Amino acid sequence: MSSFPLTPNNRITRLPKRGEYDLDAIYSILDEALVCTLAFVREGQPVQIPTGFCRVGDKLYVHGSVGSGYMRAMAEGMNVCLSVTHVDGLVLARSAFHHSMNYRSVVIFGTTARVTDENEMYLALEAFTEKVQPGRWNDVREPDAGEWKATLVLSITIDDASGKVRTGPPKDDDEDYTRDTWAGVVPLKIQRLAPIPDQLLKEGVPMPDYLK
Amino acid sequence: MSSFPLTPNNRITRLPKRGEYDLDAIYSILDEALVCTLAFVREGQPVQIPTGFCRVGDKLYVHGSVGSGYMRAMAEGMNVCLSVTHVDGLVLARSAFHHSMNYRSVVIFGTTARVTDENEMYLALEAFTEKVQPGRWNDVREPDAGEWKATLVLSITIDDASGKVRTGPPKDDDEDYTRDTWAGVVPLKIQRLAPIPDQLLKEGVPMPDYLK
Repeated sequence: MSSFPLTPNNRITRLPKRGEYDLDAIYSILDEALVCTLAFVREGQPVQIPTGFCRVGDKLYVHGSVGSGYMRAMAEGMNVCLSVTHVDGLVLARSAFHHSMNYRSVVIFGTTARVTDENEMYLALEAFTEKVQPGRWNDVREPDAGEWKATLVLSITIDDASGKVRTGPPKDDDEDYTRDTWAGVVPLKIQRLAPIPDQLLKEGVPMPDYLK
Repeated sequence: MSSFPLTPNNRITRLPKRGEYDLDAIYSILDEALVCTLAFVREGQPVQIPTGFCRVGDKLYVHGSVGSGYMRAMAEGMNVCLSVTHVDGLVLARSAFHHSMNYRSVVIFGTTARVTDENEMYLALEAFTEKVQPGRWNDVREPDAGEWKATLVLSITIDDASGKVRTGPPKDDDEDYTRDTWAGVVPLKIQRLAPIPDQLLKEGVPMPDYLK
Protein backbone atom coordinates (compact mmCIF):
# COMPACT_ATOMS: atom_id res chain seq x y z
CA MET A 1 0.00 0.00 0.00
CA SER A 2 1.55 3.33 -1.01
CA SER A 3 -1.38 5.56 -0.11
CA PHE A 4 -4.38 5.51 2.21
CA PRO A 5 -7.65 4.67 0.43
CA LEU A 6 -10.27 7.41 0.31
CA THR A 7 -13.24 6.82 2.60
CA PRO A 8 -16.09 9.04 3.81
CA ASN A 9 -13.99 9.58 6.96
CA ASN A 10 -10.77 10.85 5.46
CA ARG A 11 -11.73 12.54 2.20
CA ILE A 12 -10.73 16.23 2.28
CA THR A 13 -13.85 18.09 1.21
CA ARG A 14 -12.73 21.66 1.96
CA LEU A 15 -9.96 22.78 -0.44
CA PRO A 16 -9.49 19.21 -1.74
CA LYS A 17 -6.37 20.18 -3.72
CA ARG A 18 -4.60 20.42 -0.35
CA GLY A 19 -5.40 16.78 0.40
CA GLU A 20 -2.50 14.36 0.89
CA TYR A 21 -3.03 10.61 1.11
CA ASP A 22 0.43 9.30 0.25
CA LEU A 23 1.71 6.89 2.90
CA ASP A 24 5.27 8.22 3.08
CA ALA A 25 4.11 11.85 3.15
CA ILE A 26 1.69 11.13 6.01
CA TYR A 27 4.29 9.14 7.97
CA SER A 28 6.80 11.94 7.51
CA ILE A 29 4.37 14.55 8.90
CA LEU A 30 3.59 12.27 11.84
CA ASP A 31 7.22 11.46 12.61
CA GLU A 32 8.26 15.11 12.72
CA ALA A 33 5.65 15.90 15.39
CA LEU A 34 6.67 15.62 19.04
CA VAL A 35 3.11 15.74 20.31
CA CYS A 36 -0.32 14.89 18.98
CA THR A 37 -3.82 15.45 20.24
CA LEU A 38 -5.84 12.36 20.92
CA ALA A 39 -9.64 12.77 20.82
CA PHE A 40 -12.20 10.33 22.12
CA VAL A 41 -15.80 10.29 23.27
CA ARG A 42 -16.61 10.17 27.00
CA GLU A 43 -20.26 9.95 27.98
CA GLY A 44 -21.23 11.35 24.60
CA GLN A 45 -18.92 14.37 24.87
CA PRO A 46 -15.72 15.06 22.89
CA VAL A 47 -12.49 15.02 24.91
CA GLN A 48 -8.94 15.76 23.80
CA ILE A 49 -5.60 14.93 25.38
CA PRO A 50 -2.35 16.47 24.12
CA THR A 51 0.30 13.76 24.44
CA GLY A 52 3.59 12.46 23.12
CA PHE A 53 3.42 9.62 20.63
CA CYS A 54 5.55 7.64 18.24
CA ARG A 55 5.17 5.46 15.18
CA VAL A 56 6.64 2.00 14.63
CA GLY A 57 5.79 0.61 11.22
CA ASP A 58 2.10 1.04 10.54
CA LYS A 59 1.06 1.58 14.16
CA LEU A 60 1.08 4.60 16.44
CA TYR A 61 1.81 4.38 20.15
CA VAL A 62 1.00 6.52 23.17
CA HIS A 63 1.95 5.74 26.72
CA GLY A 64 0.93 6.79 30.17
CA SER A 65 0.42 5.63 33.70
CA VAL A 66 -1.56 2.52 34.56
CA GLY A 67 -3.27 4.86 37.06
CA SER A 68 -4.67 7.12 34.35
CA GLY A 69 -8.42 6.80 33.91
CA TYR A 70 -8.48 7.63 30.22
CA MET A 71 -5.52 5.33 29.49
CA ARG A 72 -7.33 2.47 31.22
CA ALA A 73 -10.51 3.20 29.27
CA MET A 74 -8.55 3.18 26.01
CA ALA A 75 -6.85 -0.07 27.00
CA GLU A 76 -10.23 -1.72 26.51
CA GLY A 77 -10.27 -0.62 22.85
CA MET A 78 -11.76 2.70 21.77
CA ASN A 79 -12.30 4.61 18.56
CA VAL A 80 -10.01 7.63 18.62
CA CYS A 81 -9.05 10.48 16.36
CA LEU A 82 -5.43 11.62 16.46
CA SER A 83 -4.00 14.70 14.79
CA VAL A 84 -0.75 16.60 14.38
CA THR A 85 -0.08 19.98 12.78
CA HIS A 86 3.08 21.80 11.76
CA VAL A 87 2.77 25.52 11.11
CA ASP A 88 5.41 26.36 8.50
CA GLY A 89 4.65 29.98 7.77
CA LEU A 90 2.36 32.99 7.95
CA VAL A 91 0.80 33.78 4.59
CA LEU A 92 0.22 37.51 4.32
CA ALA A 93 -2.08 38.30 1.43
CA ARG A 94 -3.29 41.64 0.11
CA SER A 95 -6.80 41.02 1.42
CA ALA A 96 -7.81 39.93 4.92
CA PHE A 97 -9.85 37.14 3.34
CA HIS A 98 -6.85 35.43 1.73
CA HIS A 99 -4.64 35.49 4.81
CA SER A 100 -3.61 31.95 5.61
CA MET A 101 -0.88 29.77 7.00
CA ASN A 102 1.42 27.28 5.41
CA TYR A 103 0.97 24.04 7.29
CA ARG A 104 1.15 20.28 7.18
CA SER A 105 -1.46 18.40 9.18
CA VAL A 106 -2.57 14.80 9.51
CA VAL A 107 -5.79 13.41 10.93
CA ILE A 108 -5.98 9.70 11.80
CA PHE A 109 -9.01 7.63 12.71
CA GLY A 110 -7.94 4.57 14.63
CA THR A 111 -8.61 2.00 17.29
CA THR A 112 -6.70 1.62 20.55
CA ALA A 113 -5.46 -1.58 22.16
CA ARG A 114 -3.26 -2.25 25.16
CA VAL A 115 0.16 -3.56 24.19
CA THR A 116 0.75 -6.75 26.14
CA ASP A 117 3.55 -8.28 24.05
CA GLU A 118 6.77 -7.45 25.91
CA ASN A 119 8.87 -7.12 22.78
CA GLU A 120 6.39 -4.73 21.15
CA MET A 121 6.24 -2.68 24.34
CA TYR A 122 10.04 -2.50 24.57
CA LEU A 123 10.31 -1.36 20.95
CA ALA A 124 7.63 1.28 21.50
CA LEU A 125 9.39 2.68 24.59
CA GLU A 126 12.69 2.74 22.69
CA ALA A 127 10.97 4.59 19.84
CA PHE A 128 9.48 7.14 22.28
CA THR A 129 12.90 7.95 23.70
CA GLU A 130 14.57 8.02 20.30
CA LYS A 131 11.87 10.36 19.03
CA VAL A 132 12.49 12.89 21.82
CA GLN A 133 16.21 12.71 20.99
CA PRO A 134 17.75 10.38 18.39
CA GLY A 135 20.70 8.53 19.88
CA ARG A 136 19.38 8.80 23.43
CA TRP A 137 18.23 5.24 24.15
CA ASN A 138 21.73 3.78 24.37
CA ASP A 139 22.79 6.40 26.94
CA VAL A 140 20.05 6.05 29.51
CA ARG A 141 18.97 3.61 32.15
CA GLU A 142 16.32 1.31 30.71
CA PRO A 143 13.00 0.82 32.52
CA ASP A 144 13.26 -1.33 35.63
CA ALA A 145 10.61 -3.81 36.73
CA GLY A 146 8.63 -1.23 38.73
CA GLU A 147 8.62 1.34 35.93
CA TRP A 148 7.68 -1.34 33.43
CA LYS A 149 4.65 -2.32 35.52
CA ALA A 150 3.61 1.32 36.01
CA THR A 151 3.58 2.03 32.28
CA LEU A 152 0.62 1.45 30.03
CA VAL A 153 1.42 1.45 26.32
CA LEU A 154 -1.41 1.72 23.82
CA SER A 155 -1.18 0.93 20.14
CA ILE A 156 -3.39 2.76 17.68
CA THR A 157 -4.15 1.19 14.33
CA ILE A 158 -4.45 3.62 11.44
CA ASP A 159 -7.91 2.83 10.08
CA ASP A 160 -8.18 6.02 7.98
CA ALA A 161 -5.63 8.75 7.41
CA SER A 162 -5.50 12.01 5.55
CA GLY A 163 -3.04 14.85 5.34
CA LYS A 164 -3.60 18.45 4.38
CA VAL A 165 -0.77 20.64 3.17
CA ARG A 166 -0.49 24.28 2.12
CA THR A 167 2.77 25.66 0.74
CA GLY A 168 3.83 28.67 -1.25
CA PRO A 169 2.94 32.34 -1.63
CA PRO A 170 -0.39 34.05 -1.00
CA LYS A 171 -3.07 33.66 -3.63
CA ASP A 172 -4.90 36.93 -4.06
CA ASP A 173 -7.83 38.01 -6.19
CA ASP A 174 -6.66 39.34 -9.56
CA GLU A 175 -7.75 42.90 -8.91
CA ASP A 176 -5.81 43.06 -5.61
CA TYR A 177 -2.35 42.53 -7.15
CA THR A 178 -2.14 46.24 -8.00
CA ARG A 179 -2.56 47.27 -4.35
CA ASP A 180 0.28 48.99 -2.48
CA THR A 181 0.21 46.25 0.15
CA TRP A 182 3.25 44.16 0.95
CA ALA A 183 2.48 40.46 0.50
CA GLY A 184 4.48 37.33 1.09
CA VAL A 185 5.30 34.60 3.56
CA VAL A 186 6.97 34.68 6.97
CA PRO A 187 8.49 31.20 7.35
CA LEU A 188 8.38 29.68 10.83
CA LYS A 189 10.80 27.05 12.06
CA ILE A 190 11.30 25.23 15.35
CA GLN A 191 14.73 26.14 16.59
CA ARG A 192 16.75 24.08 19.06
CA LEU A 193 18.56 26.37 21.47
CA ALA A 194 21.79 25.50 23.29
CA PRO A 195 21.25 22.56 25.68
CA ILE A 196 21.03 23.53 29.38
CA PRO A 197 22.87 20.98 31.55
CA ASP A 198 21.07 19.91 34.72
CA GLN A 199 22.57 21.73 37.73
CA LEU A 200 22.87 18.33 39.41
CA LEU A 201 24.85 16.86 36.50
CA LYS A 202 27.72 14.68 37.72
CA GLU A 203 31.02 16.51 37.32
CA GLY A 204 32.98 15.69 34.18
CA VAL A 205 30.10 14.19 32.19
CA PRO A 206 30.43 15.54 28.63
CA MET A 207 27.60 16.63 26.37
CA PRO A 208 26.89 13.79 23.94
CA ASP A 209 27.71 14.28 20.26
CA TYR A 210 24.04 14.04 19.25
CA LEU A 211 23.36 17.31 21.08
CA LYS A 212 26.17 19.28 19.44
CA MET B 1 -13.30 35.67 37.92
CA SER B 2 -9.54 35.23 38.10
CA SER B 3 -9.44 31.47 37.64
CA PHE B 4 -11.60 28.75 36.14
CA PRO B 5 -13.55 26.74 38.75
CA LEU B 6 -12.63 23.08 39.13
CA THR B 7 -15.19 20.68 37.71
CA PRO B 8 -15.11 16.96 36.95
CA ASN B 9 -14.35 17.97 33.35
CA ASN B 10 -11.28 20.12 33.84
CA ARG B 11 -9.59 18.79 37.01
CA ILE B 12 -6.07 17.57 36.19
CA THR B 13 -5.89 14.12 37.74
CA ARG B 14 -2.54 12.94 36.30
CA LEU B 15 0.37 14.93 37.78
CA PRO B 16 -2.01 17.46 39.40
CA LYS B 17 0.90 19.73 40.40
CA ARG B 18 1.17 20.61 36.70
CA GLY B 19 -2.43 21.88 36.66
CA GLU B 20 -3.04 25.54 35.81
CA TYR B 21 -6.45 27.16 36.22
CA ASP B 22 -5.52 30.84 36.37
CA LEU B 23 -7.48 32.89 33.83
CA ASP B 24 -4.58 35.05 32.64
CA ALA B 25 -2.24 32.08 32.36
CA ILE B 26 -4.76 30.13 30.29
CA TYR B 27 -5.52 33.12 28.04
CA SER B 28 -1.82 33.68 27.52
CA ILE B 29 -1.26 30.05 26.43
CA LEU B 30 -4.25 30.30 24.08
CA ASP B 31 -3.22 33.64 22.58
CA GLU B 32 0.29 32.44 21.76
CA ALA B 33 -1.05 29.51 19.69
CA LEU B 34 -1.62 30.04 15.97
CA VAL B 35 -3.67 26.87 15.59
CA CYS B 36 -5.83 24.72 17.82
CA THR B 37 -7.48 21.36 17.37
CA LEU B 38 -11.24 21.32 17.60
CA ALA B 39 -12.82 17.99 18.55
CA PHE B 40 -16.45 17.07 18.24
CA VAL B 41 -18.63 13.98 18.01
CA ARG B 42 -20.04 12.90 14.64
CA GLU B 43 -22.34 9.90 14.59
CA GLY B 44 -20.89 8.75 17.90
CA GLN B 45 -17.28 8.95 16.69
CA PRO B 46 -14.59 11.44 17.73
CA VAL B 47 -13.43 13.86 15.01
CA GLN B 48 -10.72 16.52 15.13
CA ILE B 49 -10.05 19.50 12.92
CA PRO B 50 -6.81 21.49 13.14
CA THR B 51 -7.73 25.13 12.56
CA GLY B 52 -6.78 28.72 13.21
CA PHE B 53 -8.61 30.49 16.00
CA CYS B 54 -8.56 33.65 18.06
CA ARG B 55 -9.82 34.94 21.38
CA VAL B 56 -11.76 38.14 21.99
CA GLY B 57 -12.53 38.65 25.66
CA ASP B 58 -13.91 35.48 27.16
CA LYS B 59 -14.89 33.85 23.86
CA LEU B 60 -12.94 31.89 21.26
CA TYR B 61 -13.64 32.14 17.54
CA VAL B 62 -13.02 29.89 14.56
CA HIS B 63 -14.02 30.64 11.01
CA GLY B 64 -14.52 28.76 7.80
CA SER B 65 -16.57 28.53 4.69
CA VAL B 66 -20.36 28.52 4.72
CA GLY B 67 -19.91 25.49 2.44
CA SER B 68 -18.14 23.43 5.10
CA GLY B 69 -20.24 20.58 6.45
CA TYR B 70 -18.72 20.56 9.93
CA MET B 71 -18.90 24.36 10.21
CA ARG B 72 -22.58 24.25 9.33
CA ALA B 73 -23.16 21.48 11.89
CA MET B 74 -21.39 23.53 14.56
CA ALA B 75 -23.41 26.59 13.61
CA GLU B 76 -26.41 24.79 15.12
CA GLY B 77 -24.64 24.63 18.50
CA MET B 78 -22.41 21.70 19.47
CA ASN B 79 -20.36 20.63 22.43
CA VAL B 80 -16.72 20.82 21.44
CA CYS B 81 -13.32 20.31 23.01
CA LEU B 82 -10.54 22.65 21.89
CA SER B 83 -6.88 22.34 22.75
CA VAL B 84 -3.55 24.00 22.10
CA THR B 85 -0.04 22.87 23.05
CA HIS B 86 3.34 24.60 23.03
CA VAL B 87 6.40 22.37 23.25
CA ASP B 88 9.09 24.41 25.02
CA GLY B 89 11.85 21.87 25.44
CA LEU B 90 13.09 18.30 25.42
CA VAL B 91 13.74 17.00 28.93
CA LEU B 92 16.58 14.50 28.83
CA ALA B 93 16.72 12.53 32.06
CA ARG B 94 19.17 9.86 33.18
CA SER B 95 16.52 7.15 32.84
CA ALA B 96 14.27 6.48 29.88
CA PHE B 97 11.30 6.56 32.25
CA HIS B 98 11.82 10.18 33.31
CA HIS B 99 12.27 11.56 29.80
CA SER B 100 9.71 14.26 29.25
CA MET B 101 9.00 17.55 27.53
CA ASN B 102 8.52 21.02 28.84
CA TYR B 103 5.18 22.21 27.55
CA ARG B 104 2.19 24.46 28.10
CA SER B 105 -1.17 23.10 27.05
CA VAL B 106 -4.79 24.14 27.48
CA VAL B 107 -7.94 22.08 27.05
CA ILE B 108 -11.29 23.87 26.75
CA PHE B 109 -14.78 22.41 26.87
CA GLY B 110 -17.20 24.75 25.16
CA THR B 111 -20.29 25.28 23.11
CA THR B 112 -20.41 26.63 19.57
CA ALA B 113 -22.77 29.21 18.13
CA ARG B 114 -22.91 31.00 14.81
CA VAL B 115 -21.98 34.66 15.09
CA THR B 116 -24.78 36.67 13.49
CA ASP B 117 -24.07 40.07 15.02
CA GLU B 118 -22.17 42.01 12.33
CA ASN B 119 -20.07 43.95 14.80
CA GLU B 120 -19.00 40.80 16.68
CA MET B 121 -18.15 39.13 13.35
CA TYR B 122 -16.09 42.13 12.22
CA LEU B 123 -14.15 42.19 15.49
CA ALA B 124 -13.49 38.44 15.25
CA LEU B 125 -12.18 38.72 11.67
CA GLU B 126 -9.96 41.64 12.68
CA ALA B 127 -8.65 39.58 15.61
CA PHE B 128 -7.90 36.63 13.29
CA THR B 129 -5.81 38.79 10.99
CA GLU B 130 -4.08 40.58 13.86
CA LYS B 131 -3.25 37.22 15.42
CA VAL B 132 -1.52 35.97 12.27
CA GLN B 133 0.45 39.22 12.21
CA PRO B 134 -0.05 42.11 14.62
CA GLY B 135 -0.40 45.37 12.71
CA ARG B 136 -1.71 43.69 9.60
CA TRP B 137 -5.41 44.62 9.64
CA ASN B 138 -4.85 48.28 8.76
CA ASP B 139 -2.75 47.35 5.70
CA VAL B 140 -5.08 44.97 3.93
CA ARG B 141 -8.27 45.08 1.97
CA GLU B 142 -11.19 44.37 4.29
CA PRO B 143 -13.73 41.66 3.41
CA ASP B 144 -16.13 42.67 0.64
CA ALA B 145 -19.79 41.72 0.53
CA GLY B 146 -19.18 38.41 -1.24
CA GLU B 147 -16.39 37.34 1.12
CA TRP B 148 -18.48 38.39 4.09
CA LYS B 149 -21.36 36.17 2.94
CA ALA B 150 -19.01 33.23 2.24
CA THR B 151 -17.56 33.31 5.75
CA LEU B 152 -19.02 31.48 8.71
CA VAL B 153 -17.72 32.62 12.08
CA LEU B 154 -18.37 30.48 15.14
CA SER B 155 -18.02 31.60 18.73
CA ILE B 156 -17.06 29.08 21.39
CA THR B 157 -17.95 29.77 24.99
CA ILE B 158 -15.41 28.55 27.52
CA ASP B 159 -17.51 26.32 29.78
CA ASP B 160 -14.54 24.59 31.44
CA ALA B 161 -10.84 25.26 31.01
CA SER B 162 -7.64 23.79 32.33
CA GLY B 163 -3.98 24.25 31.58
CA LYS B 164 -1.09 21.92 32.16
CA VAL B 165 2.47 23.18 32.36
CA ARG B 166 5.85 21.54 32.83
CA THR B 167 9.00 23.63 33.21
CA GLY B 168 12.51 23.09 34.48
CA PRO B 169 15.16 20.36 34.59
CA PRO B 170 14.67 16.60 34.54
CA LYS B 171 13.59 14.94 37.77
CA ASP B 172 15.46 11.69 38.20
CA ASP B 173 15.35 8.97 40.80
CA ASP B 174 17.85 9.62 43.61
CA GLU B 175 20.07 6.65 42.75
CA ASP B 176 20.40 7.75 39.10
CA TYR B 177 22.14 11.09 39.82
CA THR B 178 25.48 9.30 40.11
CA ARG B 179 25.24 7.92 36.56
CA ASP B 180 27.67 9.07 33.84
CA THR B 181 24.75 10.18 31.70
CA TRP B 182 24.41 13.75 30.48
CA ALA B 183 21.08 15.22 31.58
CA GLY B 184 19.40 18.52 30.95
CA VAL B 185 16.99 20.38 28.73
CA VAL B 186 17.11 21.27 25.04
CA PRO B 187 14.93 24.41 24.75
CA LEU B 188 12.79 24.71 21.63
CA LYS B 189 11.58 27.98 20.21
CA ILE B 190 9.55 28.98 17.16
CA GLN B 191 11.77 31.14 15.01
CA ARG B 192 10.52 33.62 12.42
CA LEU B 193 12.77 33.52 9.37
CA ALA B 194 13.27 36.42 6.97
CA PRO B 195 10.01 37.31 5.18
CA ILE B 196 9.82 36.10 1.55
CA PRO B 197 8.15 38.73 -0.66
CA ASP B 198 5.58 37.45 -3.14
CA GLN B 199 7.13 37.26 -6.63
CA LEU B 200 4.09 39.18 -7.86
CA LEU B 201 4.60 42.00 -5.36
CA LYS B 202 4.00 45.40 -6.96
CA GLU B 203 7.31 47.16 -7.60
CA GLY B 204 8.40 49.62 -4.93
CA VAL B 205 6.15 48.36 -2.14
CA PRO B 206 8.28 48.35 1.04
CA MET B 207 8.25 45.72 3.74
CA PRO B 208 6.14 47.02 6.66
CA ASP B 209 7.83 47.89 9.95
CA TYR B 210 6.00 45.13 11.83
CA LEU B 211 7.90 42.54 9.79
CA LYS B 212 11.36 43.97 10.43
